[in-house]
Amino acid sequence: MSDDALVIFTPSGKRGRVAKGTPVLAAARALGVDLDSVCGGRGICSKCQVAPGYGEFPKHGLHVGEDALSPINAVEARYDRIRGLKEGRRLGCQACIQGDIVIDVPPESQVHRQVIRKSASERVMEMDPATRTLFIEVPEPSMHEPKGDFERLSEALAAQFGLTGLQAGLPVLAQLQKVLRKGHWQISAAVNEAGNGTPPRLVAVYPGLREAALYGLAIDLGSTTIAGHLVALDDGRVLASSGLMNPQIRFGEDLMSRVSYAMMNEGGAEEMTRAVQEAMGSLAETLATEAGVERGDIVEAVVVCNPVMHHLLLGIDPVELGQAPFALATNEALDLHAADIGLAPLAPGARAYILPLIAGHVGADCAAVALCEAPEAREDLSLIVDVGTNAEILLGNKERVLACSSPTGPAFEGAQISSGQRAAPGAIERIEIDPTTKEPRFRIIGNDFWSDDPAFGTPTITGICGSGIIEAVAEMRIAGILDPSGLIGSAEQVGTARCCATGRTHEYVIHDASPDGPRITVTQGDIRAIQLAKSALYAGARLLMDEMGVDKVDRVVLAGAFGAHISPKHAMVLGMIPDVPLEAVTSAGNAAGTGARMALCSRKSRRAIEAQVQRIVKIETAIEPRFQEHFVAANAIPHATAPFEELAKVVTLPDVGFNAGGAPEGGGRRRRRG
Amino acid sequence: MSDDALVIFTPSGKRGRVAKGTPVLAAARALGVDLDSVCGGRGICSKCQVAPGYGEFPKHGLHVGEDALSPINAVEARYDRIRGLKEGRRLGCQACIQGDIVIDVPPESQVHRQVIRKSASERVMEMDPATRTLFIEVPEPSMHEPKGDFERLSEALAAQFGLTGLQAGLPVLAQLQKVLRKGHWQISAAVNEAGNGTPPRLVAVYPGLREAALYGLAIDLGSTTIAGHLVALDDGRVLASSGLMNPQIRFGEDLMSRVSYAMMNEGGAEEMTRAVQEAMGSLAETLATEAGVERGDIVEAVVVCNPVMHHLLLGIDPVELGQAPFALATNEALDLHAADIGLAPLAPGARAYILPLIAGHVGADCAAVALCEAPEAREDLSLIVDVGTNAEILLGNKERVLACSSPTGPAFEGAQISSGQRAAPGAIERIEIDPTTKEPRFRIIGNDFWSDDPAFGTPTITGICGSGIIEAVAEMRIAGILDPSGLIGSAEQVGTARCCATGRTHEYVIHDASPDGPRITVTQGDIRAIQLAKSALYAGARLLMDEMGVDKVDRVVLAGAFGAHISPKHAMVLGMIPDVPLEAVTSAGNAAGTGARMALCSRKSRRAIEAQVQRIVKIETAIEPRFQEHFVAANAIPHATAPFEELAKVVTLPDVGFNAGGAPEGGGRRRRRG
Repeated sequence: MSDDALVIFTPSGKRGRVAKGTPVLAAARALGVDLDSVCGGRGICSKCQVAPGYGEFPKHGLHVGEDALSPINAVEARYDRIRGLKEGRRLGCQACIQGDIVIDVPPESQVHRQVIRKSASERVMEMDPATRTLFIEVPEPSMHEPKGDFERLSEALAAQFGLTGLQAGLPVLAQLQKVLRKGHWQISAAVNEAGNGTPPRLVAVYPGLREAALYGLAIDLGSTTIAGHLVALDDGRVLASSGLMNPQIRFGEDLMSRVSYAMMNEGGAEEMTRAVQEAMGSLAETLATEAGVERGDIVEAVVVCNPVMHHLLLGIDPVELGQAPFALATNEALDLHAADIGLAPLAPGARAYILPLIAGHVGADCAAVALCEAPEAREDLSLIVDVGTNAEILLGNKERVLACSSPTGPAFEGAQISSGQRAAPGAIERIEIDPTTKEPRFRIIGNDFWSDDPAFGTPTITGICGSGIIEAVAEMRIAGILDPSGLIGSAEQVGTARCCATGRTHEYVIHDASPDGPRITVTQGDIRAIQLAKSALYAGARLLMDEMGVDKVDRVVLAGAFGAHISPKHAMVLGMIPDVPLEAVTSAGNAAGTGARMALCSRKSRRAIEAQVQRIVKIETAIEPRFQEHFVAANAIPHATAPFEELAKVVTLPDVGFNAGGAPEGGGRRRRRG
Repeated sequence: MSDDALVIFTPSGKRGRVAKGTPVLAAARALGVDLDSVCGGRGICSKCQVAPGYGEFPKHGLHVGEDALSPINAVEARYDRIRGLKEGRRLGCQACIQGDIVIDVPPESQVHRQVIRKSASERVMEMDPATRTLFIEVPEPSMHEPKGDFERLSEALAAQFGLTGLQAGLPVLAQLQKVLRKGHWQISAAVNEAGNGTPPRLVAVYPGLREAALYGLAIDLGSTTIAGHLVALDDGRVLASSGLMNPQIRFGEDLMSRVSYAMMNEGGAEEMTRAVQEAMGSLAETLATEAGVERGDIVEAVVVCNPVMHHLLLGIDPVELGQAPFALATNEALDLHAADIGLAPLAPGARAYILPLIAGHVGADCAAVALCEAPEAREDLSLIVDVGTNAEILLGNKERVLACSSPTGPAFEGAQISSGQRAAPGAIERIEIDPTTKEPRFRIIGNDFWSDDPAFGTPTITGICGSGIIEAVAEMRIAGILDPSGLIGSAEQVGTARCCATGRTHEYVIHDASPDGPRITVTQGDIRAIQLAKSALYAGARLLMDEMGVDKVDRVVLAGAFGAHISPKHAMVLGMIPDVPLEAVTSAGNAAGTGARMALCSRKSRRAIEAQVQRIVKIETAIEPRFQEHFVAANAIPHATAPFEELAKVVTLPDVGFNAGGAPEGGGRRRRRG
C-alpha cells in the first residue's frame, strides 16, 4: 500500500499526491486550491468546509472508499453539535486524507468567489477584496519580555499567516488593548493588503471570531449628486444604496462656477472641501443605517469622481483645472485613510481607494466606466459616452482605447433651458409630436400615463428634464417644426398655432396652463443650447474616430443615470451620437458606480484599471483644431444618411427647410468645463 | 600624456583615477567622497564648493599645476559676481579635472558633517538627518501628456536624484501646484527618507532654490514639564530652547493619578490626549517664534517620553500601564505624521519620530539616555540613573546593558515633603549644617548668596526643592541630627533647640519666620519619605548589579535636570547610589533631551538605539523578590564603608545612634508608578 494518496479537487480540477494523514486544508494549500480559512486551521471558523465524494468516479478512474478521509473527530463533532455542519460536509482543517479521494470545494468555501455582475454585459467579477479577516491568537504579555501588544499581534500574524511588516495607525492602536482582553487574546484582525507593494495595514480588530462579513462603500461623487452603495465584501452583494445632493451646489451649480468660487474667495476651496467631506460622512452614516450595519464594520471605500470633485475632495484648490493646460495636482490612483476624505467614523483604519484620473477633464468616474465596460476586451469598436455637464467619451477595442472630454455644458441636464429643470417629479421626460397635427403628448416623472390618457389626471407640470428636452427637439425636427439648421418655423410655416412668435424668433408651446399654471415652451434659445451641447458631444466622438482612423463605430454605450434615460432614437435624430443601427445602442446604466463596486471587490480590478489608464490615449479637445471643425459642422440637425434612412422607416421625417442655404448659426466655441 | 588623472580628496584621503574632463562633483561621487549638492550640479546651490590645492604635495609625491582644474567658467564667474565665492574655492559641479590634483572638501560642503556634542563625554555626532532639501526642475504640464504635477515631480526626483517611489500626503499635495508655478517649475523639495525601508516622503515644497536650513524639534515630554529644542538640521545647532508645564497636571500630579483619571472618567484619556497635544503645538509655536523660524520650515520632530505619556500622547488609554503585567500597546519606534500628535502647523508633511520604549516602565526617555550615554560603547561599567517620579536605571558596559525602573515616588521632586516644592525661585536648593553648632545655612534658587552672607538680604523663602531635601537629610545625618536608622534626635540628644518635638517624633527647623513668614522644617515623615525613595532607587541599582554579577560599578552618571542638581557627595551619604569614588560620579545633564537631538540629527542614531533597545535586558522590579530584599535593607542611612571612609575625609561624620540596635523602620513596599 502506498504512503501517499491521490486527491482531486473540484470544481478546479486541481490534483496531486499528498502524504496520507495530510489535512484536506493543507493539501488544498499545497496544490494551490482556493479554500478559505479564517481561523488558521483551528476548527473554529468553518470557512474551510468541503464536500468529499465517495463511490465511483469513472471519469477519474477512481473508487473512493468510505475510509478515504479520517473519521469525524472531536473538533468536528463539537462544531456540528454547537453550530451544525451541513450533511456530507467536513471541516477541511480536521479531515485528513487516508486514501485516493475527490473533494468538492463549495462556492462559499472559496476565497475568490466569482459573482455575476448584474448588468447588460453580465461580466463575471471575482471577489478579491483588499481587506480580509484573520482570526488570530495573540500571546499574552509577560513582564519578562516587555513587547507591546501590537508587536505580539504582528508576530503572530507573521507566524500564522505569513503576513510580514504589519502597520497600524493610531486610531486602531487605540482600540487594540481593550479588544485583545475582551477576546481573551483571540481576536479577528481586519487586514488591508493593497496588493501594490505597500505593507499590510491593520484596519480593525474585533474580539473573538468574527463570522459576519466586512463591508465596503462604493461612492460615485458627482457634481450634483453623491451616490453610494454599501457592499458586503464576502460576496459583493449590495446591502443599501443611497444618494444625496452634493452640498457644493450652493457654491455653484456647475463645476466651473465652483472653480471660480475657489479663485474669488479666500478659503473658498477649503470651504467646499469641508462641505463635500461632511457629505461623504453623512452618506456613510445613511448607508450603514439603511443596511443595519455598524459603521465600525465598514473597512474600505472606493470613490470615483471627476477631476474637479477629486481635487476638492482631497483639499486641493482646483484652480489649475479651470485653465489650460488643465494640470492635475496628481493623476494616479490614491490609497488613503478613509477619515482623510471625511469618511468617518468607519473602522478605525478604514482605507479609501480613489481610481486614477485619465486626464485634466477625464476623471476617475470615466476610469470606472472604462473598468466596467472594458472596451479593450472586445473585438468590435465601442463608443462609450458618459453624459454629464462634461461628456466623457471612450472609443476603443482590443487594439487601442482613446478618451476625451467634451464641454457639453449643462443643457442636457435641463439647465440653461427656458423651461428646463432637473429630473424630478413633475418634469416632462418623454414627448411625442404628431407629425401631422403637430400636437404633442408627453409623460412626466412620477406619472405612469401619457398626457393624452384620461388617467393622466391634472398633475402639476413643472418643466422639462434633460431626456425630455432631447426628445422634444428631436420630435420637433421629425414633425417639421424645426428646419435642419435648427430654426423654429412660424405658425404659418409649420401649420400650428403652437408656434408662437417671441421677438424675432418663435417658440413651440408644449403645455400652457397660463395664467394659473405653467406655460412650458421650447424657445429658439433652447434649441441653440441643445445644438451647442450635442455638437460638442458629437465633435468629441468624431475626434476620437478620426484619431482611430474610422468613420463608423460598431456599438454605442450610453453610460450614466442620464444615459439610461436617453432614447437612442431621438439621440440619433438629434445627432448627439454617430449613426449606428438602433439595436447597437445600449445603456450601461450607472457604469461608473458599477466600476467603483468592481474596484471595491477586487484588487485585480484596481490593478487592471491602473494599467489600462496608462495605456488609454488621451485626446485633449481644447488643442485639437479638428474638434472645432467637427463642432461647427455638427451644428445642424442631421440630414438623411444611411443609418438615418433606417431610422426613417421608424419615424416619418419631413424634409423641411425654412432658411435653406443659410449657414448654420451658433458655431462659436463655448468653453465650459465641469 | 595619460587620458586620466589622479585625484586625492582630503580630509577623507579617498583617491582614484578619473577621466580628464570629469567634474569634481562627479569624481567625488564616483569615489564615494561626501560632497554635498542640492541643485544636482547646476551651479546654483554652491553646496559643492571645494578648495583645490596647487603646488607640491610631497606626501603624495605630487606636483599640482595651475591647470589641474579647468579655468573658472561662466557659471562660476556669475555665481562669484552675484553671490561671492570665497578665495580659492571652486564649484565642484563646474570645475573639471584636467590633471593630477589634491582637493579639499571643507566641512560646510560635507553632507554628513560631524559636530561635537556639548556634553561631558564630548562625543562626536554625525549629521545624517532624515529630511533633506533637493532643488529640482520639474517639467511643465502638457495637454498632450496629462500627468499630474506630483507625478512629474516624482519622476524628476527619480531621474535626477535616484529617489524612487516618492509618497506625499494630502496637505503637501495641496501646496504643490502653487509652489511649482511660483518657482517657475524650479522648487526645493524637502524629502524625508526614514532609512528604515519605507518609501521617501515629500514633506514640504518651497519655490526656487532654498538655501536656508530646514529645522527640527527635539522634545522631551515629561510628566511635569515639556521641554523642547529647535535645531537646525544642517549642522545641529540649537536655535531656541523652551519648556512649558504639562497641562495634564490638572488631571493628576503624578502619572498614576492620571492613569486613575483615565480609568474613572469616561473620555478621560481623550481629554488628556487633547491637552498634551495642544501643549505640543504651542511649544512648537513658542520655539519657532523664539528662533525666528517659520513653522512651515520645521520638517521633523523627535519625541522622548515615559510610557504613560507616550500612550496618552498617541491617544491610547494608559490603563494597562497601571497594573501588572504593565503591557504596552506598542513598544517599537514610531514614525508618524507630526500633526497626528498635535505638532501643527509645521511643514505640511512634517514627520514625528518617537524613540522605542524599553519596557512597561522604562520609556523612550530612558532610550534617549541610553543613546546619549551609550554605556555599550565603554569597557568600564556605568550605572546611569535618571531620577524622576520613577527612576529609570541603566547598568552596563560593552558586554551587556540592563535596564529597570524603580518606583521612587515624587519625594525627590519635593512632593510629599512637608516643606517641599518644585524647583522654583525661593526654594532652598543647597544646605550645609555645621556639625558642631548644628546651625544650618542654605541657598535659595534665584539668589547667588548663602543665607549667612549679608548680601543674602531678606528674600521670601518658600520651601525646599528636591536637591535641597536630599542635602538636608544627608547633612542632618553628617551633623548627627539623624541616627543610622533615620530617626531625628531630640533637642537634648542632638544638642540644639532646632530639634523640636512634634507629637511622638521630632522635626529639625531650618528656617523660622513665623508667625509672619514660613517655618521650614524637616519632619520625621519627610525623612521616611526620602528613605523610601532612596531605598527604591538603591534597590533598583543593586538588582541590576546582582543580575550583572557585580558588587560595584566603575562610574555613576546622574541624568536628568534633577540629576544635574544633585550633589554626588550627599547622594552617596544618603545611600541613593552605590559607593564609588566621588570623582566617578558625573552629571549627564539633560541626557534624554540630548538623545532626542541625536535622533533628530542622525538616522544612524535612530537605527542604533532601535537595535540597542532590542538588546537591552529588561528587569521588572515588580516581579523580582530580591528587589524587595534590597529595598528593605537599603532603608538605613549607611554606615561607613570603604568609599564612605574616603568621604569622611571631606566631611565629619559623627557616630551617632539614637535607637542603636533597633530594626530600620518603614520597610513596607510602596508601589508607586509614574
